[in-house]
Amino acid sequence: MQRYFADSKITTEYQLTPEIYKHAIKVLRMKVGDIFELVDDVEVVHKMEITKIEDGKAKATSVEIIPSDVELPADVTIACGISKNDKADWIVQKSTEMGATKFIFFIGDYSVAKWDKKRSSKKVQRLQKIARSAAEQSHRTKIPEVTFVEKLKDIDFEKNDARIVAYEESAKKGESGNLFKILNKKPSNIIAIFGPEGGISPKEIEFLEANSFILAGLGPRIMRAETAPLYFLASLSFALELS
Amino acid sequence: MQRYFADSKITTEYQLTPEIYKHAIKVLRMKVGDIFELVDDVEVVHKMEITKIEDGKAKATSVEIIPSDVELPADVTIACGISKNDKADWIVQKSTEMGATKFIFFIGDYSVAKWDKKRSSKKVQRLQKIARSAAEQSHRTKIPEVTFVEKLKDIDFEKNDARIVAYEESAKKGESGNLFKILNKKPSNIIAIFGPEGGISPKEIEFLEANSFILAGLGPRIMRAETAPLYFLASLSFALELS
Repeated sequence: MQRYFADSKITTEYQLTPEIYKHAIKVLRMKVGDIFELVDDVEVVHKMEITKIEDGKAKATSVEIIPSDVELPADVTIACGISKNDKADWIVQKSTEMGATKFIFFIGDYSVAKWDKKRSSKKVQRLQKIARSAAEQSHRTKIPEVTFVEKLKDIDFEKNDARIVAYEESAKKGESGNLFKILNKKPSNIIAIFGPEGGISPKEIEFLEANSFILAGLGPRIMRAETAPLYFLASLSFALELS
Repeated sequence: MQRYFADSKITTEYQLTPEIYKHAIKVLRMKVGDIFELVDDVEVVHKMEITKIEDGKAKATSVEIIPSDVELPADVTIACGISKNDKADWIVQKSTEMGATKFIFFIGDYSVAKWDKKRSSKKVQRLQKIARSAAEQSHRTKIPEVTFVEKLKDIDFEKNDARIVAYEESAKKGESGNLFKILNKKPSNIIAIFGPEGGISPKEIEFLEANSFILAGLGPRIMRAETAPLYFLASLSFALELS
């Protein structure tokens, strides 16, 4: 069933926002009596029935609360050095499907792509839209937050009780147990750092190690910058939700 | 380092194939004395040094054997109902990075896309190229094979000691232990079936269950058709290579 986020409290009668109106009434051609799902601002999922469509506006009413438990049992921040092309787009789309809670993009020492102030705020807006739409599609109750910081050092990881950096050099040296060890402790607030296409610089690694980040290999194969976060999130879900 | 597949035995002196010549000499502008990696037909990785470039041809010689252990400890076939657009392209690219051994595409009962005979043979050729290039990039020693069959029933799963079907309905009903149970047995030859965008039909599920396939949920979130195989492969790698 089609799902939307309300970003607000849902009282008896809900007026569809212009965005939801456009998609539900114009694109999907929903009629009075049709049903959709709406997630309110405290992650409660309502089954909504459309009650009125008039003058370019529509109203719906909550007919049922749908129990939902689809979020990962941990907060997971995916922090990525920016790469070229639309890689960030699909890191956000796919990682949202896989349950990420938050995204931070940063300009890595080896980033070839550059996001200046204007570009970065546009990019973040666009990525935030992608996150919302992927969260709707994967029937989540949380829209991941997307942010941008200039440098790796600007990331606030104070609250993260598990700090991981996906490091290709670790994998090459045969490191294969760290990810399992970390996930086995069932951490509740995780941050994982991924380099841009060019990788993470020794200086960045030094900084991360000095801040209690664990270097972890993600298997023996070399993955592209946009694939590694998915490997990480799937492993996390497998370890925390399926094992 | 740049890696290529030779598809042949490598004797003392190796003449670059036209494809490798084009990429190494024309695109990457390698010179005499430059080094690349070449995987021979029995998955041995050679460090090759270019010895001669002349008249649109180039020769190289093996200067070292590079030990390599990057393949999954199990044969893994990813069988997908065909979906629209370029979804197959990136299922093959990303799943190759994650270690898949073989791909089978089939027309599912709910497939909207249709591949006729002519189209399917072109598609398979194209996907095989993508698999080769992703295998080179992820420094694998095996190029996954890509095939196409008309129907789910045409898939030969005789040799697969673990048979899985990723089934959204299982996940919705809260099934969460089957994938772990199957992977915990460390199977050596696995096939996993994924539906097209529209999902798997009850008839197909009936057929699969009658043939010892286990219905497994891949976590509580709904993933797109092209994301589910990646979740599966990452979980598999995590369970078999990192745990």
